[in-house]
Amino acid sequence: MSDAPQPLRIALAGLGTVGAGVIRLIEANSALIARRAGRPIAVTVVGARDRGKDRGVDLTRYAWEDDMVIMGERADVDVVVEMVGGSDGPALACARTTIEAGKALVTANKAMIAHHGLELAAKAEAARVALKFEAAVAGGIPVIKGLREGAAANEIERVYGILNGTCNYILSTMEDSGRDFADVLAEAQAKGYAEADPAFDIEGTDAAHKLSILAAIAFGSSLDFAGVETSGITRLRAADIAQADALGYVIRLIGMADVMDGAEGKCLFQRVQPHLVPFDHPLAHVDGATNAVVAEGNFSGRLLFQGAGAGDGPTASAVVADLIDIARGEIGAPFSVPVAELEVMTTADAGQRTGRAYVRLMAADRPGVLAEITAAFRDAGVSIESLIQKGRSDDGAVMVAMVTHEGPESAVSEAVRLLAGSESLTESPLVLHILGD
Amino acid sequence: MSDAPQPLRIALAGLGTVGAGVIRLIEANSALIARRAGRPIAVTVVGARDRGKDRGVDLTRYAWEDDMVIMGERADVDVVVEMVGGSDGPALACARTTIEAGKALVTANKAMIAHHGLELAAKAEAARVALKFEAAVAGGIPVIKGLREGAAANEIERVYGILNGTCNYILSTMEDSGRDFADVLAEAQAKGYAEADPAFDIEGTDAAHKLSILAAIAFGSSLDFAGVETSGITRLRAADIAQADALGYVIRLIGMADVMDGAEGKCLFQRVQPHLVPFDHPLAHVDGATNAVVAEGNFSGRLLFQGAGAGDGPTASAVVADLIDIARGEIGAPFSVPVAELEVMTTADAGQRTGRAYVRLMAADRPGVLAEITAAFRDAGVSIESLIQKGRSDDGAVMVAMVTHEGPESAVSEAVRLLAGSESLTESPLVLHILGD
Repeated sequence: MSDAPQPLRIALAGLGTVGAGVIRLIEANSALIARRAGRPIAVTVVGARDRGKDRGVDLTRYAWEDDMVIMGERADVDVVVEMVGGSDGPALACARTTIEAGKALVTANKAMIAHHGLELAAKAEAARVALKFEAAVAGGIPVIKGLREGAAANEIERVYGILNGTCNYILSTMEDSGRDFADVLAEAQAKGYAEADPAFDIEGTDAAHKLSILAAIAFGSSLDFAGVETSGITRLRAADIAQADALGYVIRLIGMADVMDGAEGKCLFQRVQPHLVPFDHPLAHVDGATNAVVAEGNFSGRLLFQGAGAGDGPTASAVVADLIDIARGEIGAPFSVPVAELEVMTTADAGQRTGRAYVRLMAADRPGVLAEITAAFRDAGVSIESLIQKGRSDDGAVMVAMVTHEGPESAVSEAVRLLAGSESLTESPLVLHILGD
Repeated sequence: MSDAPQPLRIALAGLGTVGAGVIRLIEANSALIARRAGRPIAVTVVGARDRGKDRGVDLTRYAWEDDMVIMGERADVDVVVEMVGGSDGPALACARTTIEAGKALVTANKAMIAHHGLELAAKAEAARVALKFEAAVAGGIPVIKGLREGAAANEIERVYGILNGTCNYILSTMEDSGRDFADVLAEAQAKGYAEADPAFDIEGTDAAHKLSILAAIAFGSSLDFAGVETSGITRLRAADIAQADALGYVIRLIGMADVMDGAEGKCLFQRVQPHLVPFDHPLAHVDGATNAVVAEGNFSGRLLFQGAGAGDGPTASAVVADLIDIARGEIGAPFSVPVAELEVMTTADAGQRTGRAYVRLMAADRPGVLAEITAAFRDAGVSIESLIQKGRSDDGAVMVAMVTHEGPESAVSEAVRLLAGSESLTESPLVLHILGD
């Protein structure tokens, strides 16, 4: 008989809600984790900025380490779980030291992976240790595993989804209540669904971090956060949502990536933007703080992964799934293929894409405005499928909402350019793309 | 520099549509598969009953092996992919020989795994070879990986889903068209969505095979296909679907499993039955031949995996994902924990469950019938939430449809028992459970 298997010894760097969730999960499910992992998973060391803070979990059984950066150098640690947050600073220092010490790193830190994932992955490959970050994208949903392993046989044609629970909560609440953005945001902040400083979520940065990670894994492309075209949900009005509904759509903040053929070879397209989603698309039924990711494979067809995108329980679930993989000996390339084999792609020119768009303009209520607007779209070569002009809004402007026929995005941009500076418009036009098949 | 990595050499046993799909996939995506797997995956040997048949793929580059049973014994084979089908016979012989020869086995054969999965898993563990069957459940959706690895940190509280695409196609077509079962089945057969002999699908057996496999992985319970309470969709009428719609539900064939506490310890509940699914549940929007599986974890919350449940492309995608895992060295316990650690649970007594039910009766159109029916439910202690009596159907009977309040299933069964043999009823009552939170 062999000896009892050695536990996998874990250091937790950072003890916010996710860190406390990881401790609760490992304590609550320890027996089944040991059965599934083939050996126990045991927290040995913890550390955070403030030792004295009450976190609702008993920390007395674990060693305390003040310096999170050196946790990976301790002899009683096999894996460091980095939950400090922030793309740089102590989180990055902790990650580098851990991997350089030959220890595995698990992180929920999407900003750090989006900015430094390739450097860390190259280091991990060189050190032959695991670098895992399932919790960095879509919370508890095993979507990185789904892409990296479940869909590994496929050329992925497109990956897209609802990647930010705060935005989805706000949009689906606006939809249900008919209320405006600022009003719903304030309520979401009061309820704790949105941060006191919500910019990171509502301006799309958080979703862009996640999308860049998904794209690298899906397409074997070099991670390129800077290449994500990002806009948030702050300009949406209740009237946009009502108008979309009348047309058969809901509005969702969608992160989408695919590979386009450019003159110089493959180009990577990555966009985070509110999209009009047809009622009969699975993403149209994703409400509240839920996340969902669709991957379209050339053999699998459309795969959908859906679940809680945030929260301490779901995030801890993803962190510990990574730990179980490590305990089972699964140490693969973090981005599915080795960093050296990731393809560096140029950023795609979105103007080359074709599709349908929703364009909403706020215009002064006076004669000739509609003629000016429609002339600009005609001159840009945009064909209009439908147009509606609504009565005055609270600020005295009238809303003109149109849906274009399928056509190049460059033409719509040109129409918007032609209207720039027009005294007829009270704000710049809002262009939202319509999610196509 | 190390030498070029050795290819993983594959034998394909069975060359039906799935076998041909696997060949097409491996040929089309060979370069990206090699990048992701770390080495090429190469078919070396193929075999099927009829060598002469045209399968639309070029087989001349592969060795032909007449005897599928001995494929695993060949020196030029590392993994056998069993796609012969059938729970016993040549498929099982092929599987046993392969594992006993120390080679890995990948299969899409849900019947064989449902009946002999534990024996094969024990053999594979003893031989330290991989046994993988992602394609056996829900086609191209990586749901076995999702449960076995993605949700591995969780105690799974319930697993359920739409596991048979043929039934879902029929039900969603009945829903859209208002047509009756037999009519839609005939059309599905003509279009190739249903087999000439559809019993296996429409009576729920196929879904029961898949459910038993999911339950073993989710709960660490000993695989128990015989313990699945199974009913199909053959008794459903267009009027049931219309009535469900009026009440705020769609009807879907759901396979569901959870663990109940019994007097003697843990009991395994497994049921395949048409359920009423509330409009706001994600499964209510799963239409056509799509499959979807929900796993509810104690930390992850509700996870949904959705995609194509059948077809050569999706099934090949799952088969080759298993091959990539094997090429990467991932050889874990097939049912997540070693066979010896799976818990043998008794079959749960469904009567102990509580819930709401839809009960539909076809009754003679004469005075006193409604009084007889409602008296039986009163005497059984069933509380009625709503009841509707509809006019005569084509066969001269009237339909009585009721929804019960939350209560024990045993009470509803008792009411049905009290009505057994009643001359007022033209067929036995149809009881469908309502999917609860």
